[in-house]
Amino acid sequence: MNWPCKAISILRNPLARPKVFAYNKRRMSGRQDQHNSARNSTFDLQAFLAGGTQEVNRALDRLLPKSSTRPATIHKAMRYSLFAGGKRMRPALCLAAAQACNGREADALPLACAVECIHTYSLIHDDLPAMDNDDYRRGKLTNHKVFGEGIAVLAGDALLTQAFEIAAQSKGWPRYPHQQIIQEVASAAGSLQLIAGQVADLEAEGKRISASQLRYIHERKTSALLCCSVRLGGMSANCTAAQLQALTDFGYHVGLAFQVIDDILDVTQTSETLGKTAGKDTRAQKATYPAIVGLEKSRRIAAGLTAKAFAALKVFHGKARALEALAQFLLQRDR
Amino acid sequence: MNWPCKAISILRNPLARPKVFAYNKRRMSGRQDQHNSARNSTFDLQAFLAGGTQEVNRALDRLLPKSSTRPATIHKAMRYSLFAGGKRMRPALCLAAAQACNGREADALPLACAVECIHTYSLIHDDLPAMDNDDYRRGKLTNHKVFGEGIAVLAGDALLTQAFEIAAQSKGWPRYPHQQIIQEVASAAGSLQLIAGQVADLEAEGKRISASQLRYIHERKTSALLCCSVRLGGMSANCTAAQLQALTDFGYHVGLAFQVIDDILDVTQTSETLGKTAGKDTRAQKATYPAIVGLEKSRRIAAGLTAKAFAALKVFHGKARALEALAQFLLQRDR
Repeated sequence: MNWPCKAISILRNPLARPKVFAYNKRRMSGRQDQHNSARNSTFDLQAFLAGGTQEVNRALDRLLPKSSTRPATIHKAMRYSLFAGGKRMRPALCLAAAQACNGREADALPLACAVECIHTYSLIHDDLPAMDNDDYRRGKLTNHKVFGEGIAVLAGDALLTQAFEIAAQSKGWPRYPHQQIIQEVASAAGSLQLIAGQVADLEAEGKRISASQLRYIHERKTSALLCCSVRLGGMSANCTAAQLQALTDFGYHVGLAFQVIDDILDVTQTSETLGKTAGKDTRAQKATYPAIVGLEKSRRIAAGLTAKAFAALKVFHGKARALEALAQFLLQRDR
Repeated sequence: MNWPCKAISILRNPLARPKVFAYNKRRMSGRQDQHNSARNSTFDLQAFLAGGTQEVNRALDRLLPKSSTRPATIHKAMRYSLFAGGKRMRPALCLAAAQACNGREADALPLACAVECIHTYSLIHDDLPAMDNDDYRRGKLTNHKVFGEGIAVLAGDALLTQAFEIAAQSKGWPRYPHQQIIQEVASAAGSLQLIAGQVADLEAEGKRISASQLRYIHERKTSALLCCSVRLGGMSANCTAAQLQALTDFGYHVGLAFQVIDDILDVTQTSETLGKTAGKDTRAQKATYPAIVGLEKSRRIAAGLTAKAFAALKVFHGKARALEALAQFLLQRDR
């Protein structure tokens, strides 16, 4: 397996040490083989994330109409949620995938911004009273609590539309022309993926569902857009078909692991730590991994999925260090 | 002026004879110059609309996931509103513009379908309780009355996303590659146009606004997507810059006229005729042309706008017959 031994030790007991972040450690320690040690000891995820977030925020600020642009309400509402302190995980995955394929950050940036717009729109709409009815997100009042439901619906609509406008501003690549880029985004965000996941999630509320039904939800609600983010990063580097397949495998498994961990955190963390209402899934009788298979098995599942994600990165022969570090970080996060 | 004299007589008293439709008359009469008479006496708008609607419906049925596709609820909800008997005016304008530029219907069809998806999404969201709170649309219960608010929000989201997927499936043209087509759609549907119009409309409710503020709303809420439909039709025929400019002028003025007439119909027609709640604008204290400038002046404004739309078609030297007939039809409609 081509992953850092640090990760292996975590996989044995995922989430056991949620306060220890890879990005807080400039030099990683533990049982490491020589090769991985040399690669990862110098990789600074904190710097990568900070730099990526700054670039993405700057680009989003440039690409979106200003808050004062008429009608100001909608642009304020769009920016309120877009700049509400999101972790920018999808843009980071996009930029990291581009790096793994020797791409340029500037080429991946519009696509990274497009997926963040889609992610933010989906959160605004998911939080609406008619859906998850959440008052807080990222420690701040949700969009409809500040701007009202009508404007929140429209702000989501506007961000979704903006995502396609931004994606169309990318430069286009020989193997991946604009037509394919737009279809990639539309497919991940559409009624067979992201929206299908939200619908299935809504419909599963208060019902007993199987682990396979839950996986169906997770694959669509979370994994689809994460996987799309990674694939778009590869596409922005005009990656080969083999690289795209590897990125797809990686994104799919990281996406599933990400959602399993989200479910675990909902029952193990406080609202303060999460920045959103903790324990909400349980109270809403939401189908979650801990509810269906228990906490310990959920942790093992998250670890297994992350292992598969790492395995997919073999084809990059050590150049996918940002993706490795990100996967490790996502497994260890406590919020 | 290069428009049928039939139109001129209507412009003197628009909406005076709402029951008389151009498409019901195979042979148009009245004071006509020889040239226009020859052109329009043989144009069968009824056949054009029926054929176009059939093609668009077939294409939409082919392009959208089936009602049974999992999760079935969302696809049923999307199709419920998409096939609720809409007049398919935007697709018709798109196909008519393609015809004016010697384009092929098959090339314009995906773009005609894309604008219809956008139009339908905007209606679903506009009808929500948090916005216009309408129970009926096209004589049927609105989407949220049938499927609930959560699914209605998602069905709108899905149709918006689907529009971009379909637009990206168009073939792409030398002067108008996919990048430009997507930006055209995103711009018309975005926070500076369609959504801006809806926001400004929401914010104007119960307030006294000027005629110029009302025009700002109409330009965005209605004219933007109508204009985009016409432009996309031209683009699908790889039209020249001069043709695109003419189509833009035509679409802009027809779009404004369309909305002024909508306002007039709201106060002059019954709910039964309109297929939606009549008199709603007045009760909701909505800013409308009749409310601001009165019914007679509204009719004169609609006539003036339509005249400008006709004038824009001069560059087509008689080949824009479908567009002419459509503009005439839109001015005379009673619902």
